[in-house]
Amino acid sequence: MGFVMKVLKSILFIFSLILFFAFNSSINGQKKISEQTQECLDCHSDIHPGIVHQWKESLHSQITPAEAMKKDKLHRKVSSLQIPDSLKNKVVGCYECHGLNPKNHKDTFEHNGYMIHVVVSPKDCAVCHKEEAKQYSGNLMAHAYDNLMGNSVYKQLVKTTNGVPQTKNQSLNFKHPTKLTNAESCLYCHGTKVEVKGFETKETDFGEMEFPVLTGWPNQGVGRVNPDGSLGSCTSCHSRHDFSIKMARNPATCSECHKGPDVPAYKVYSVSKHGNIYNNNKSKWNWESVPWTVGKDFTAPTCASCHASLIVDESGNVIAERTHKFNDRLAWRLIGVPYSQAHPKIPEISKIKNKAGLQLVSELNGEPAKNFLITPAEQDKRNKRMKKVCSSCHSSSWVDNHFKRLENTIKETNKLVKAATSLMIKIWNEKLADDSNLFDEAIEREWTSIWLFYTNSTKFTSAMGGGGDYGVFAEGRFQATQTLMKMYDWYKQHSKMKKLSAEKK
Amino acid sequence: MGFVMKVLKSILFIFSLILFFAFNSSINGQKKISEQTQECLDCHSDIHPGIVHQWKESLHSQITPAEAMKKDKLHRKVSSLQIPDSLKNKVVGCYECHGLNPKNHKDTFEHNGYMIHVVVSPKDCAVCHKEEAKQYSGNLMAHAYDNLMGNSVYKQLVKTTNGVPQTKNQSLNFKHPTKLTNAESCLYCHGTKVEVKGFETKETDFGEMEFPVLTGWPNQGVGRVNPDGSLGSCTSCHSRHDFSIKMARNPATCSECHKGPDVPAYKVYSVSKHGNIYNNNKSKWNWESVPWTVGKDFTAPTCASCHASLIVDESGNVIAERTHKFNDRLAWRLIGVPYSQAHPKIPEISKIKNKAGLQLVSELNGEPAKNFLITPAEQDKRNKRMKKVCSSCHSSSWVDNHFKRLENTIKETNKLVKAATSLMIKIWNEKLADDSNLFDEAIEREWTSIWLFYTNSTKFTSAMGGGGDYGVFAEGRFQATQTLMKMYDWYKQHSKMKKLSAEKK
Amino acid sequence: MGFVMKVLKSILFIFSLILFFAFNSSINGQKKISEQTQECLDCHSDIHPGIVHQWKESLHSQITPAEAMKKDKLHRKVSSLQIPDSLKNKVVGCYECHGLNPKNHKDTFEHNGYMIHVVVSPKDCAVCHKEEAKQYSGNLMAHAYDNLMGNSVYKQLVKTTNGVPQTKNQSLNFKHPTKLTNAESCLYCHGTKVEVKGFETKETDFGEMEFPVLTGWPNQGVGRVNPDGSLGSCTSCHSRHDFSIKMARNPATCSECHKGPDVPAYKVYSVSKHGNIYNNNKSKWNWESVPWTVGKDFTAPTCASCHASLIVDESGNVIAERTHKFNDRLAWRLIGVPYSQAHPKIPEISKIKNKAGLQLVSELNGEPAKNFLITPAEQDKRNKRMKKVCSSCHSSSWVDNHFKRLENTIKETNKLVKAATSLMIKIWNEKLADDSNLFDEAIEREWTSIWLFYTNSTKFTSAMGGGGDYGVFAEGRFQATQTLMKMYDWYKQHSKMKKLSAEKK
Repeated sequence: MGFVMKVLKSILFIFSLILFFAFNSSINGQKKISEQTQECLDCHSDIHPGIVHQWKESLHSQITPAEAMKKDKLHRKVSSLQIPDSLKNKVVGCYECHGLNPKNHKDTFEHNGYMIHVVVSPKDCAVCHKEEAKQYSGNLMAHAYDNLMGNSVYKQLVKTTNGVPQTKNQSLNFKHPTKLTNAESCLYCHGTKVEVKGFETKETDFGEMEFPVLTGWPNQGVGRVNPDGSLGSCTSCHSRHDFSIKMARNPATCSECHKGPDVPAYKVYSVSKHGNIYNNNKSKWNWESVPWTVGKDFTAPTCASCHASLIVDESGNVIAERTHKFNDRLAWRLIGVPYSQAHPKIPEISKIKNKAGLQLVSELNGEPAKNFLITPAEQDKRNKRMKKVCSSCHSSSWVDNHFKRLENTIKETNKLVKAATSLMIKIWNEKLADDSNLFDEAIEREWTSIWLFYTNSTKFTSAMGGGGDYGVFAEGRFQATQTLMKMYDWYKQHSKMKKLSAEKK
Repeated sequence: MGFVMKVLKSILFIFSLILFFAFNSSINGQKKISEQTQECLDCHSDIHPGIVHQWKESLHSQITPAEAMKKDKLHRKVSSLQIPDSLKNKVVGCYECHGLNPKNHKDTFEHNGYMIHVVVSPKDCAVCHKEEAKQYSGNLMAHAYDNLMGNSVYKQLVKTTNGVPQTKNQSLNFKHPTKLTNAESCLYCHGTKVEVKGFETKETDFGEMEFPVLTGWPNQGVGRVNPDGSLGSCTSCHSRHDFSIKMARNPATCSECHKGPDVPAYKVYSVSKHGNIYNNNKSKWNWESVPWTVGKDFTAPTCASCHASLIVDESGNVIAERTHKFNDRLAWRLIGVPYSQAHPKIPEISKIKNKAGLQLVSELNGEPAKNFLITPAEQDKRNKRMKKVCSSCHSSSWVDNHFKRLENTIKETNKLVKAATSLMIKIWNEKLADDSNLFDEAIEREWTSIWLFYTNSTKFTSAMGGGGDYGVFAEGRFQATQTLMKMYDWYKQHSKMKKLSAEKK
Repeated sequence: MGFVMKVLKSILFIFSLILFFAFNSSINGQKKISEQTQECLDCHSDIHPGIVHQWKESLHSQITPAEAMKKDKLHRKVSSLQIPDSLKNKVVGCYECHGLNPKNHKDTFEHNGYMIHVVVSPKDCAVCHKEEAKQYSGNLMAHAYDNLMGNSVYKQLVKTTNGVPQTKNQSLNFKHPTKLTNAESCLYCHGTKVEVKGFETKETDFGEMEFPVLTGWPNQGVGRVNPDGSLGSCTSCHSRHDFSIKMARNPATCSECHKGPDVPAYKVYSVSKHGNIYNNNKSKWNWESVPWTVGKDFTAPTCASCHASLIVDESGNVIAERTHKFNDRLAWRLIGVPYSQAHPKIPEISKIKNKAGLQLVSELNGEPAKNFLITPAEQDKRNKRMKKVCSSCHSSSWVDNHFKRLENTIKETNKLVKAATSLMIKIWNEKLADDSNLFDEAIEREWTSIWLFYTNSTKFTSAMGGGGDYGVFAEGRFQATQTLMKMYDWYKQHSKMKKLSAEKK
């Protein structure tokens, strides 16, 4: 092809772009905003310019469900096959979400003639995004409130972390934590229970108005218990009011809850080879494309590409199906538990009990509570799903060797936790510490740090194929073994002391 | 409007852009550089290409004060109403700053026929930016040198942190820290005292030349004591030599001093919902615009938008006035003190004394040194300023509930600190530790970590509306309560031991 | 120049751009891919779309060695003066690297009629990049495997960090770490020994095929021992398969191994003034340009610009020569050793022995193992190279004062380590701890943390001209002195206890 042709083609391309944007903005010019939403916008554009602007930038403001439903299955973001006619032909504005299912929402209130609710819930989103809402309801995260607050072991941890300390007769006690503190501590990520405590009248720029009084609000935790009884908050990842797929695909978003020493996923990722490629090339990637084409749209995995996204190759072959049940590609439960084992069968972990009667998926000696866990066959299935993603860039030996390391690390960190737990039990048995609360003494916190932080960090580093020091010197193996040494040192010293005191008498 | 019109409009728009840039570069072509600055550039373009290039990219090199003064009040960056004629019509180059007020600067030296000083100070910047310099002089930060080095309590901390340890008769002592160490440790952020120790002749590429000998230099700390007697360093945030407003608005800039465990603001922000939106959308924001329009220019708060910037809505209504006194919108002092209370009335904290004679804004039992603090009415005023910023995106219930949580957290963390401090006092009283220096024994450092790190992190997370684990497992409540448990454990063990030893005798 | 001319010039410029890209893509259209590589691509484009796409974006796929060699010395990236004719005129594709030197590679296997190896090594890259490979072989990093695993002191640390703990008779022991764990722990960064354990037949989409069985694989550590006997992995920094210079210049890349508490370079950088400028302006910099022009291409130093890159000024004068021996501009060895001193003369540190017979470059009392270290004259030479880089933006007083602070900090942190080590030796001598392994008791780990983490962080902050809290409260001086206090506390308590027990008997 000659140069002249090339130049002509380029010019044609530029003109097409101009035409495309002209056409596009023409659609926006005529965009189908419902009367109700327009009425919301008339006031709220002034009162809350920030969120209105975000919405204007969003797809919700630019496309109607009817238009979105026309796309073929691979390209569709709207999974519901039926959407009420009343919603179909208007863009998704304020009223389309805040006005849904008014009777189910205890937070519904009359507002300028409309029945409006404050807390938009997964049940509301499910009107258009049915599949995602359904998948998410089977996700551990949807049950994060009860998995924490309904578990008698973890509740002890919550109490001694969030409660105000008080000292009586030289011993340290903790008051029951206030709801206000729980809401900004553990439940910030796990989700609060949002409850309607009545209604109140407020003076506003537009005169007196009545609003619901909510407790546990604001919150966007993953397992939020909503006033309509549903669980979860889509805005945990798809932040208001642009609700973008881009945001949910960006690892920085996940860091909101997955950066601390208990779940250091983001820290590990950011110093992994994958994270490096992301850091260097992210501005060139296509973060919006659905489906997400490996190689063309992105060249290194993000949290979403391994755990959630619909991934295809350039020919459109599906490498991984979209899922909002994030352990669909995960064989092992690594975090939040002393010992790692297969994932539990059900997402409501607080329903599980080990032989000792504790709501834990393993005994304190590490033996898994087998009946409650997925089978090796199911683990295999999940591993295969994940390996298919890895294989987009890596040979089968590479991938197999990676998983061998992970399984070895699970085994070895479990042994380390067992050594620490055996010592802890000995300390309890010899009455050097009191096991009525597992988390309220210095030595118990050392034990807790080993499994809640250091072996977690080690396992994450292994699972994610490297994460520099997070498996070694940065709250990894070094700190795990050091803390075990500290426990030994403490035990020797305290038992000697006890002996000396006893001999005295 | 038809497509053809659209296309024509688009083409017209592109041509306008071309014209604009052509015009713009034409201005640059004729830009009014003073003779003196031109002489500086003739040599320094070769010697220091990095900083000269930064300056060329800056507004200072592109616009004269006279031009900048023509803008209306909302759009003006130059707040001085009077600027000397000699400076007005030249762009702001090397000589315009380094040649100002030569007599006031002890670091002035003769350089190729000009009287030049090394350290450009807020007094120099005030020639054009009078209001900002004035506001900043009332800022706690401007007094950060003396607030640390003039406070007998904090000086003990400096000594035992920066001093070389020496051991005599089994006890641990610390030499007085060297100035070199202080300058790169505490004073890196607080600011050094820059002093002229004489002049020296150096061999250069242009022959022998004389230069001032400075100690405490280099430094860009916020409370730098300058050779002209002024306090502060505008380059702390507006980094040389582009001095951009963009940089000062970017949270990454604040992280230089606000990321450690004592002031973890940046860490907290980066995992907050606000930080997520920033991370995802920052490349699309308009970081340069003055005033800063919420929604249009940016869609999530940064450090600057809450604490400093002039914020307007799209109609030009002022939501928040610009301030360089960063607690103008803050009711509570959260950091650097054992107990949180209202902000002090004056920024020179070392002038404050509690009843016990310590330079602290509260007693060791938590009672605030009331006469020195702003009134509840003033706190209310400041809260209202901040709430107006929040209300750009959030409803009044949302905002009110947020502040309820913060006040509860201040109350509860103060109680935690009180429990730790009571125990510490008991330890001192029973002579298990020596209170002649509050920071030179292991048990004292545990106590210090509780209030200097862990409750600070907790309060920041609360104040900034969420910051994931920084209020829980990442140097938050978990570590605060754990350290309190460690103190108890230590106390019990050491008092038992003391008793045993005593019985022995 | 009139406006019309300006507009015409702008239009001309845009057309030139279009022509340029048209021409450019035309070259790609005809790009000279070898037959062998084309055969690889035919299958692997489908199997591994991710890496194939990365390669397509790389320079390797777009330019032949012959074309690359035409550039003048300053602009050349290909340092070899002779390249075999068989490689010269084809772009650098799969076969050009994976098919090189088949006989030297123990991992070579027959694959569809070609002899292919898995692990591309520095020796392979040296065909085109001879100088860089040579420089790198003199780099400490190339020897990172043996410098760790061949050093009896550090091997004790590896054992007690990575080994599974076991407890017998109340004492804590560690099994020898498994290779799988070492590979994802210390050796993730240091590099594994990649060994061929045989060959195996696998079922693939293309039928049965034979592949080598590798241990220590995957790995991209800096000192990887390759199946061809060479040391290192260029992909540590130039990540596969785009191998870009941009990536190696980006500090985020270095963070993969240099972020933990032992080598916190990235953390320090990210909160330094340099890091701030990088964070604010990196998207405007020219990351690809060779040579790298200070001021024009970048306005603040990155890891690479100080330690590796070929830096010039706008006139093309060389400020710093390119080097892949990264201590060419470094006078002092700061990290990984209890005491800092001049750099060792040779990169194979495990060949060094101090007077006490330990493989350390200093005695335990801090006295340097002088014969093994570079001379003060050589230190001076290296300092001068670095200072020339600093002088691109800073005056000589600024630079000299910076280095004064660094030397003072080295001296003072060495004193702190000496105080800690003296106490540790006393503890060993009094049999309160057992020195048969230096890292397996709680008190030994406290001592280790002082020099392996806290003084390192302090020295980095000093060396890099500021890094906020990393020299103070964030694993810096505060933690160094606190840990020394803890050691004292421990010692007093344990020696009292020993005395009490002895008196008992």
